[in-house]
Amino acid sequence: MPPTSAMNNGAASSSSLGPSSGPSSASHGNGNPYDEPRYTHDDADADELDLLGDDDATTVLRDDPLQTDLSSPLTFKRKQKQPGFLSQPARLLSSLTGRALNSSHNAARSTPNLPPSPPPPPPLTGASTRLDPLSPTKDPSSSAPHPHDWYAEGPGRRVGYEDLTAIDWIFEYTKERQRQRALRAATTTTFPPNGSSSGSGSGSAALQQLLGYAQRLLDASQVWVVLLLTGLAVGALAAAIDVATDWLGDVKDGFCSSAVDGGRFYLSRSACCFGYEESSHCRGWRRWGVALLGRAEGGGVWVVEYVVYLVLAVAFALSAAVLVKEYAIYAKHSGIPEIKTVLGGFVIRRFLGVWTLITKSLGLVLAVGSGMWLGKEGPLVHVACCCANLFIKLFSNINNNEARKREVFSAAAASGISVAFGSPIGGVLFSLEQLSYYFPDKTMWQSFVCAMTAAVVLQAFDPFRSGKLVMYQVTYDSHWHGFELVPFVILGILGGIYGGLFIKANMKVAKWRKSTAWLPGPVVQVVIVASLTALINYPNHYMRAQSSELVSNLFTECSKLVDDQFGLCKTGAASAGTVVLLIFAALLGFCLAAITFGLQIPAGIILPSMAIGALTGRAVGIVVEIWQHNHPGFIAFRSCEPDIPCITPGTYAIIGAAAALAGVTRMTVSIVVIMFELTGALTYVLPIMVAVMVSKWVGDAFSRRGIYESWIHLNEYPFLDNSEETTTSVPDMPAAQVMTRVEDLVVLTATGHTIASLSAVLAAHPYRGFPVVSDPRDAILLGYISRAELAYALHAATQPPRCLPPDDTEAFFAHQPLADPRTTLDLRPWMDQTPLTLPSGCRLHLALSYFQKLGLRYVLFVDRGALQGLLTKKDVWYVLNGAEETRRTSGMAGGGGGGAGEAGRVGGLGGDLQTGIAREHGDGESAGLLGAVGLADEAEMASPVVDGESIL
Amino acid sequence: MPPTSAMNNGAASSSSLGPSSGPSSASHGNGNPYDEPRYTHDDADADELDLLGDDDATTVLRDDPLQTDLSSPLTFKRKQKQPGFLSQPARLLSSLTGRALNSSHNAARSTPNLPPSPPPPPPLTGASTRLDPLSPTKDPSSSAPHPHDWYAEGPGRRVGYEDLTAIDWIFEYTKERQRQRALRAATTTTFPPNGSSSGSGSGSAALQQLLGYAQRLLDASQVWVVLLLTGLAVGALAAAIDVATDWLGDVKDGFCSSAVDGGRFYLSRSACCFGYEESSHCRGWRRWGVALLGRAEGGGVWVVEYVVYLVLAVAFALSAAVLVKEYAIYAKHSGIPEIKTVLGGFVIRRFLGVWTLITKSLGLVLAVGSGMWLGKEGPLVHVACCCANLFIKLFSNINNNEARKREVFSAAAASGISVAFGSPIGGVLFSLEQLSYYFPDKTMWQSFVCAMTAAVVLQAFDPFRSGKLVMYQVTYDSHWHGFELVPFVILGILGGIYGGLFIKANMKVAKWRKSTAWLPGPVVQVVIVASLTALINYPNHYMRAQSSELVSNLFTECSKLVDDQFGLCKTGAASAGTVVLLIFAALLGFCLAAITFGLQIPAGIILPSMAIGALTGRAVGIVVEIWQHNHPGFIAFRSCEPDIPCITPGTYAIIGAAAALAGVTRMTVSIVVIMFELTGALTYVLPIMVAVMVSKWVGDAFSRRGIYESWIHLNEYPFLDNSEETTTSVPDMPAAQVMTRVEDLVVLTATGHTIASLSAVLAAHPYRGFPVVSDPRDAILLGYISRAELAYALHAATQPPRCLPPDDTEAFFAHQPLADPRTTLDLRPWMDQTPLTLPSGCRLHLALSYFQKLGLRYVLFVDRGALQGLLTKKDVWYVLNGAEETRRTSGMAGGGGGGAGEAGRVGGLGGDLQTGIAREHGDGESAGLLGAVGLADEAEMASPVVDGESIL
Repeated sequence: MPPTSAMNNGAASSSSLGPSSGPSSASHGNGNPYDEPRYTHDDADADELDLLGDDDATTVLRDDPLQTDLSSPLTFKRKQKQPGFLSQPARLLSSLTGRALNSSHNAARSTPNLPPSPPPPPPLTGASTRLDPLSPTKDPSSSAPHPHDWYAEGPGRRVGYEDLTAIDWIFEYTKERQRQRALRAATTTTFPPNGSSSGSGSGSAALQQLLGYAQRLLDASQVWVVLLLTGLAVGALAAAIDVATDWLGDVKDGFCSSAVDGGRFYLSRSACCFGYEESSHCRGWRRWGVALLGRAEGGGVWVVEYVVYLVLAVAFALSAAVLVKEYAIYAKHSGIPEIKTVLGGFVIRRFLGVWTLITKSLGLVLAVGSGMWLGKEGPLVHVACCCANLFIKLFSNINNNEARKREVFSAAAASGISVAFGSPIGGVLFSLEQLSYYFPDKTMWQSFVCAMTAAVVLQAFDPFRSGKLVMYQVTYDSHWHGFELVPFVILGILGGIYGGLFIKANMKVAKWRKSTAWLPGPVVQVVIVASLTALINYPNHYMRAQSSELVSNLFTECSKLVDDQFGLCKTGAASAGTVVLLIFAALLGFCLAAITFGLQIPAGIILPSMAIGALTGRAVGIVVEIWQHNHPGFIAFRSCEPDIPCITPGTYAIIGAAAALAGVTRMTVSIVVIMFELTGALTYVLPIMVAVMVSKWVGDAFSRRGIYESWIHLNEYPFLDNSEETTTSVPDMPAAQVMTRVEDLVVLTATGHTIASLSAVLAAHPYRGFPVVSDPRDAILLGYISRAELAYALHAATQPPRCLPPDDTEAFFAHQPLADPRTTLDLRPWMDQTPLTLPSGCRLHLALSYFQKLGLRYVLFVDRGALQGLLTKKDVWYVLNGAEETRRTSGMAGGGGGGAGEAGRVGGLGGDLQTGIAREHGDGESAGLLGAVGLADEAEMASPVVDGESIL
Repeated sequence: MPPTSAMNNGAASSSSLGPSSGPSSASHGNGNPYDEPRYTHDDADADELDLLGDDDATTVLRDDPLQTDLSSPLTFKRKQKQPGFLSQPARLLSSLTGRALNSSHNAARSTPNLPPSPPPPPPLTGASTRLDPLSPTKDPSSSAPHPHDWYAEGPGRRVGYEDLTAIDWIFEYTKERQRQRALRAATTTTFPPNGSSSGSGSGSAALQQLLGYAQRLLDASQVWVVLLLTGLAVGALAAAIDVATDWLGDVKDGFCSSAVDGGRFYLSRSACCFGYEESSHCRGWRRWGVALLGRAEGGGVWVVEYVVYLVLAVAFALSAAVLVKEYAIYAKHSGIPEIKTVLGGFVIRRFLGVWTLITKSLGLVLAVGSGMWLGKEGPLVHVACCCANLFIKLFSNINNNEARKREVFSAAAASGISVAFGSPIGGVLFSLEQLSYYFPDKTMWQSFVCAMTAAVVLQAFDPFRSGKLVMYQVTYDSHWHGFELVPFVILGILGGIYGGLFIKANMKVAKWRKSTAWLPGPVVQVVIVASLTALINYPNHYMRAQSSELVSNLFTECSKLVDDQFGLCKTGAASAGTVVLLIFAALLGFCLAAITFGLQIPAGIILPSMAIGALTGRAVGIVVEIWQHNHPGFIAFRSCEPDIPCITPGTYAIIGAAAALAGVTRMTVSIVVIMFELTGALTYVLPIMVAVMVSKWVGDAFSRRGIYESWIHLNEYPFLDNSEETTTSVPDMPAAQVMTRVEDLVVLTATGHTIASLSAVLAAHPYRGFPVVSDPRDAILLGYISRAELAYALHAATQPPRCLPPDDTEAFFAHQPLADPRTTLDLRPWMDQTPLTLPSGCRLHLALSYFQKLGLRYVLFVDRGALQGLLTKKDVWYVLNGAEETRRTSGMAGGGGGGAGEAGRVGGLGGDLQTGIAREHGDGESAGLLGAVGLADEAEMASPVVDGESIL
């Protein structure tokens, strides 16, 4: 071994990685004991670039430098999958562009000394085997051999993420930086192609450099292409959804007769009646009563129209539910809790797949069209993220990096809200405030571009033919008066109460639904709720209309309302009746929304909340208006000018809507900015701000969690909130009290294992990873090996070509000078040899900061080198989420040891969670797109493998 | 020792800290070797709450539990400072409210078991000695004694920050959490006051709880009070500055004659001529020519007016320069580079003081009024932060926490931009994108409230009597055409080129100014530049006016321009001359701005950049207009409608301004949002976005640094940029190559020191801190002690009351069972016993993430318990900032050892930096407000001290 090691050393010194790794080249041989050669090998990280570079298990092994040293022949016989259009649209997309493979190929080129053109194909090629050009044994023409020093300390090899696991942010960003560095190094090299032919001259080098620059520009522009495409798609999709929803909503009432000039059945009422000032004068629009019975009046007509309305509403809802159930279970609900979880660094496969996109879009149109109390705003965020995920497939550089993917999703989410509210800045802030976990400046600009593109595209389509981005965009002429702050604060309080009660009620319903066995299936539930909604909606004037139309009318000033179809602008005694109707509608809406949100259809809660808030606000506004009208001499009303209307109930509606939204979602800035962009004036920002703030305070008094956080909590998604509140609620204790102590851990020692014994450990313990220590007595920490990597390495070693006998093969995690590499298994390459550690005496807060800010998956506690314990992200999650329930009971307060024992189960908790999630979503049939980089399934693992052993 | 330890153990068990520390109570005695008592003591952190709770050194010692165990009497004779109004306004403010001391007192109450009312005053009270009620020896009535277990691992005691040092974010946030926890614990206790009298009943408890709730509400509302006050003050101040600037700018031309009805000398021209459509018809405004010579025409008049203009301009500039020089040197320049540095976690005292506020406000008015090419936008941010710092003084809870202070400054900065551009959301995004280092959601909402308040207040003052928040707010009626994207992109390119060249020119001038010895003093420089500016400005039509007025005219559509004083709307051949004049003015403006920005007066670069961009943009717009007018049949112009104006040059001006701003500052989102808020329509957002993006790209091709980053770099401020670009430019090497290796470090061993030997170490080495290891052979890391704490502890021990002989007193950092606590010095309380560590094999990137995301000051590298090296924030800064210059030369690339040796000097580099900064700002005379929490000066340190030794 020593001579080999020396060879490695020299090789590494001569392979300095461009200017960046310059210092490594002169640090040897100066007798410095800390200058061990392990510091000089930059390759360990660079190798991993492409480890996750493809979605099959083969690639994990392809840059193994040792494979040709084995006497057994290599067989890369792998089932070649034929990409089908529907089953694998991602592959089709990437094959259409043809760039993806190349760029990932470039990424693997981590050293400038190698010629940029790939070496002549090695003899062992197959359709899917792309051997690493870096491997020295594969590339004899290379002037500088690149040994893969597996003894180098580093984060170890990875096999990829399993479904429903947390990603390692640090690892992903390191991978990306390595990729960029490799790209820069490969494209700025002045070595002419094809080895040592130096006669090509400077012209070729300049061209080379230009090409390299162009390549880097292309690389950097990929994310912009994705964002612009996403913006375009989201804008177009939103316009289509708007139009389709509008039509479906109107079809329940009647249809556009083609008998009239220009009338077409596919037109919505407003399109059909375009040009008519009042809809009652529109001839082209034929109500069902007229169409079926031939008359517009009479009791029978009302019944027939009621029945048609009911049947169509239920049919739409049923279609949506069936779509969701059959094609993509993840298309249900709002999607925002799941997006938060995904952006927080969790892998949920199929959640952002093409099938989810299609199902969610169609289902959303149907669900909204059915007239149920649900909105399309939240689901549009999900749709936008699905679009982004689709376009990400075009570029493997982004697709293969979970962290960069999440940056793009953050930006796409902004475009979702941008088109939902016609509020691009509001979308960016929504993404920043509500959704995103990691939001660097770069992402903000990307979000902004994406959101703006979507908004401009939506404006170009002009779905409402009004020039407005959304139906309920308004402008107010009047200003508010000082005394109005009192009703505005009352609206804030009402909004907070609404939010708090709504969350409580919705959670109660959801829990009841989960725990009650005799309930019918989800589709039947949808049908029942849809029927109920239709039954209630039709007779009620306000609720029959679509929510967005209702909100639009509620927001508008009476002087600007051309067609007062809801009778909102009655004056005098008649307006008292309006108030009662408004409040009645708000109450019914509350109940319906509470049972609707959580059904297995695409459904958002934002617009229903706004509608309920607007109904309440308008009611309050009318009350104040009546009061002011009847008592103009009251001291508060002195500031009103005599002849012009003093109170604008429409502004009360918008403030009520903002307050209700704040109460439900607990957002602040985003809501104010969205409202600001809806109204377009600074005038009403101050009252909106006050109402939102009051609402948030009142809502927080009910519970600290907003509706999305409540659903995250209910579904036990492993989302580690990094907000201030979470941090404050962490118990103040040393991390040592929460960690799984070393004596409770399954710890691997460095030596003394066989493949069989390690397999037995894997079989016996469900934990996700195992710390490796020197020996049981000292417990000096050597590293950490994850279950996936260990399982993979063990499995690979027992399969051809190595075929090591499990019972007799020694496996070890430390340098074994006497071990024969052909008959033993060195697991060091798969081990994270530099796991992040903390002193065990540190506060739990500090450990939490590690998880939140650095994005770790686990942290090891070490005192003076000796392993003390381990804390995983899920342990922390458990402490944060479980602490509230159990702190006062025996669980945590009973004793530190007990608490630690409960919280500290390394993988047991994760297993529970996953069962919980898998139980719910396990039967989704959509193509798995998110997290396509993953551990291959058993069938693939059985095919070509090479050994994981070193003979250096 | 063992019995004492057991006593501690039991005591800690019975003193569980409310529900949060519950688990600690049952973890003892189960034979678990990891259950050492050190884990159960939560007090070590809680004690530190108030360590920094005041700005004198006394408080550092006051919760020393051991002081009464000493036989020598305690003397707390400390010079009582008399707060003077001007020298110490902060103290006056806090004494006015009277709450500060109490609340900090509450903060010290870390345990619920103690009665919330303070114990009877101990016998040793003085005016300024506030002994800790927690100290068991001081509080015999307490049922649960609270031993201060100094053996508990923890971050150690701190004495506070020196000027020009980095703050420890983790420590500050821990302090704040502890404070809140203590507050909650103290206010939710159900223990009736005064010991064991349980007869008070539940009524008292409920009252208690209500009071506690109110107290916590008050505590939480403090930051809002600060923000609202800041918003109010900033809005009012901005209005005042607007009005005063307007007047001073106009006074150079003439004055408002009181002879005319309603005319007053203190009115600006627009106020004087309010109601007149064209200023030439205004009778009240008398030009100096009319006033002095009695006639309005003739050559002499022009000369007289020129001279008056020149004299007044120079006089204003001179006053500003003298103000800055005499009263607050930090008031010079824009202040944004310094604010970035401060927000990044650096202490610069006096930078945000009251004198800086006054000087900056007055100086800004004078400087802008002088007509020099500078803006008030950037300085307004500084003014806003100064306001916030003033109001922070009201609440010691915020004032004593450097991290929370920085959150408030982030919010205040948003209000500065909000009033500068009338763009509250733009302000928030500016703070987020450009300034802030750590920007949690909470801060976003706070920024938003502060920015909105300021904007609303400014709108209420309506300084321009136009309803506009800033002079150059516009609305456009027209839309843009597709072909116009070409000139817009050209404007983007021009903006980028302008930005790149401007930064280069400005840096050249600044460096030349620094390196040239024969230059006159700063005041004379200001006078010279002001004279030059006035000489150039007056004859030039565009440049004579104030920048904001010029920009306002350039932005406006011709159809809306009532008074075309600049002749921008000429048609036909005359407009060609306008183009030449515009470009000429832009070029002159460029030169003047390049020499002005950097002078010792308050000066921003934002408005000059906008003006230059707007001049260029308007010129391009007029060119396109002429072209379209002359060749209406050209293919690109087909989309123009025949009879209405196709091109709006005003929109070109706004896009040019945005592009120039982006080129100079390299901001993106904030600029687009600011422009969006200026124009108020979605229409022009897309072209602005495109131009800003192109400009940023072109600018980045010149240099990655914007103007503020360039100044930070030039002044060598220790700002650790956490943007993407920085991270990418980090060399890819193991941190081990950059760290100061253990053999180059001055490392303290655990034992074998005397006070004298440690003092000698301090005297011999300038480093900021010293790692502590077990013994030189093993180098097992025990902790880290900062220079400040070590110096303080050593100094305190040799002073009364302890008076330990320096030469004979043993000092140690580890448990010494046989040491006599009365004659030896245990330094463990002052040592950070849980310093954060990394494995030395980790990448430099990871270490950088630690510094950026966790806000560390140093990180230690440890392999298997043994210290390998140390890396400080300034080392990292050096690598990031120095690497570019030295990487390709011998410095870094020459060898890892050499690079590490250079970068790794622990304190030497810091010393250089500080000398650099001190040299520049050392003579500032403003009251030191920022960083008032600091190491007391020598005079104060000499007074009351207690021992730092344990007898437990």
